[in-house]
Amino acid sequence: MKTVKVHAPATIANIVCGFDILGLALNDPSDEMEMSLNNEGVIRIAHTDDYALSCSPEENVAGVALAAMMRECKAGSGFDLRIHKNIKPGSGLGSSAASSAGAVAGANYLLGNVFTKEDLVRFAMHGEKLASGVKHADNISPCLCGGVTLVRSIFPLDIIKLSAPLMYVTVVHPQIEVKTSDARQILRKEVPLKNAIKQWGNIAGLVAGFLQGDYELISRSLEDVIIEPVRSMLIPGFDDIKQKSIKAGALGGGISGSGPSVFMLSKDEATAVMVEDIMKTKCTELGVEFKTYVTTINYDGVKIITS
Amino acid sequence: MKTVKVHAPATIANIVCGFDILGLALNDPSDEMEMSLNNEGVIRIAHTDDYALSCSPEENVAGVALAAMMRECKAGSGFDLRIHKNIKPGSGLGSSAASSAGAVAGANYLLGNVFTKEDLVRFAMHGEKLASGVKHADNISPCLCGGVTLVRSIFPLDIIKLSAPLMYVTVVHPQIEVKTSDARQILRKEVPLKNAIKQWGNIAGLVAGFLQGDYELISRSLEDVIIEPVRSMLIPGFDDIKQKSIKAGALGGGISGSGPSVFMLSKDEATAVMVEDIMKTKCTELGVEFKTYVTTINYDGVKIITS
Repeated sequence: MKTVKVHAPATIANIVCGFDILGLALNDPSDEMEMSLNNEGVIRIAHTDDYALSCSPEENVAGVALAAMMRECKAGSGFDLRIHKNIKPGSGLGSSAASSAGAVAGANYLLGNVFTKEDLVRFAMHGEKLASGVKHADNISPCLCGGVTLVRSIFPLDIIKLSAPLMYVTVVHPQIEVKTSDARQILRKEVPLKNAIKQWGNIAGLVAGFLQGDYELISRSLEDVIIEPVRSMLIPGFDDIKQKSIKAGALGGGISGSGPSVFMLSKDEATAVMVEDIMKTKCTELGVEFKTYVTTINYDGVKIITS
Repeated sequence: MKTVKVHAPATIANIVCGFDILGLALNDPSDEMEMSLNNEGVIRIAHTDDYALSCSPEENVAGVALAAMMRECKAGSGFDLRIHKNIKPGSGLGSSAASSAGAVAGANYLLGNVFTKEDLVRFAMHGEKLASGVKHADNISPCLCGGVTLVRSIFPLDIIKLSAPLMYVTVVHPQIEVKTSDARQILRKEVPLKNAIKQWGNIAGLVAGFLQGDYELISRSLEDVIIEPVRSMLIPGFDDIKQKSIKAGALGGGISGSGPSVFMLSKDEATAVMVEDIMKTKCTELGVEFKTYVTTINYDGVKIITS
C-alpha cells in the first residue's frame, strides 16, 4: 500500500492587527505524519508523540477533518495515520491546524488530488471546530498554502495568498495554558468605531507593506488596538518582551493566535537571535518554562514526501 | 507677478469598506484656480463660480489651509486666488479638499516647493476641519497624490499611495443635501466585533485587489457592513442603483464620502455608461435633480500649469 510522509508547518494566526483574517506559515516547528490508504473505509490514527491526544477518529482533529472529506468521497476508502507532533497542542502555533490540514492534504494526494485547496480548507475547518469550537481558517490557510494568507471571508470561503518579503520570525512558547475558547470569551463583543477604524488602517497598511515589500510600513502597521490589549494580560512578560524586542530592532510582533506563544518579526537573523535572548531572559526571570524558535516564513505550506 | 493655474481633482473618500482611510482621485470634475504671490502677507480670494462661498480667508477652506501654511513661512508672503469650482460643495466628491489641497499645492509651487507632500496634507486638513469639523485626510491625500491612497494614520500622518488597475468610475450626484456632520452623527459609536472583522477582511481584500490588479477580488471586497447600511438610508434610490449597476456588470460601489453622491467602479467604459443610464433613470423616476459623470481614476493628483 502506498505510503506518503506529510510535513505540516506551524502557523501564526492574526499577525497582530489581522484578527481572524491573517496568518503565516513557519519553517519550524512542523508536524510529521505517515499516511496510507486502506480499503476498509475506516480511519485509524496512531500518535508517536507523547502529547496524550485521543486516537479515536471522532475525538482527534485529523480524524474529524478526514471524516468530513470521506463524506464527499466514494465509499470504501479509508486512511491509516501515524502522527508525530512537534507543534505542542495549546501553544498558539496552529497545532490543530497542522494535524487537520496535514491529514487532508496527505489524503488528497493518496486519492489522486481530486479536491481543490479550498475543499481541503473546508474539510480541515472541521478539525478547528473540534479544537476550539469555531470554524476558522486563519491557521489552516497558511498551513496549506504557505506564506502569508488572507481569509477575506469564511462563508463563502475566500482565501488570498499574499506575497511578503523575507522575514525572520522569533517565537517563544511560555509553557502556560491559555485555552482558545477562554481567549475568545474575554474579548468584548462590541468595539468603539474609532478603534475599529484605527485597526483597519493598520490592516490595510500591513497588507500593502507585505505586497510592496516595505519593511518600514510593515513595522508601523504591526499595531493592534483591539485584541492585544485584552489578551496580552493572560501572558506574563508580554509587554516587556515586545518593548525590548522592538528596541533591539524587531519590526514588531504580538500574540501568536490566541497565545500563549509570542512572536516577533525581524528583517535579519542577527536581530531575530537578539530577540530570542530577550525572550529567554524574561521567561527565566519569571520562572516560566519555555521553548523558543528562530525561523523564517515557510512559503510552500504542507509538503508531501513520496519515497 | 508669477501666476500659476491649478487643477484640483474631485475625490471619492472611503471607497465602500475603507471608511476614513481610503480614497481615490477622479479625472472629472476638477476645480480650477489661478494663484499668484503677493508681498503684503495677505490672502485674497475671489470665486468665479456661483456657489456663494465666502471669500473671507477665515471662512473659506482654501483660506484657512493657506493660513496654516503661512504660519510656517517667513513673514511677508501672501497669495491672491481666483477659484472656479466645478466640484459642487456638499456633493460628497471632495469639494472642500480640492479647494484646500489645490490652494496649498499652488502656493507651495510659488514658494519654490519648500514643503513636502505630507506638510501639504497637514495644512490642507485645516480646510477639512472648517468644512466638516474633523481633520480628515481621505479626500486630501488622493487629491494631492492622485490614484488610490491609504491614510493609515492621521496622528502621526502616514499616507501610502497604492497602485490600482485601470477602472472607470460612474458618479451620480443627486441634488439633495446631506451634511457631513449629520452623516457622521448617525453612525453608531460602537460596532459589533464580528462586523468589524468582516469589514477588515474586506479592506485587506480591497487593498490586495488594487495592488495585485485583481478585479474579481476588488469586486468581492467592495462590501461595507458598518457605514453603508446606516448612511444609505439618507440617499433615495441607493439600493436600487447599486443592485442594478452590479447586475449590469459593475465591480461594485457605494456612497462617495458621506454622500449624497454615489459611485460605481467598472472594468470597461461600456459598463460605466450602462451604469450611468441606471443612475439617470432612477433619479428621473424619483423626481430628484442630478448630475452624472463617467470618468476614470486620476493617477496624478493636483496639477500645476505654468504658462
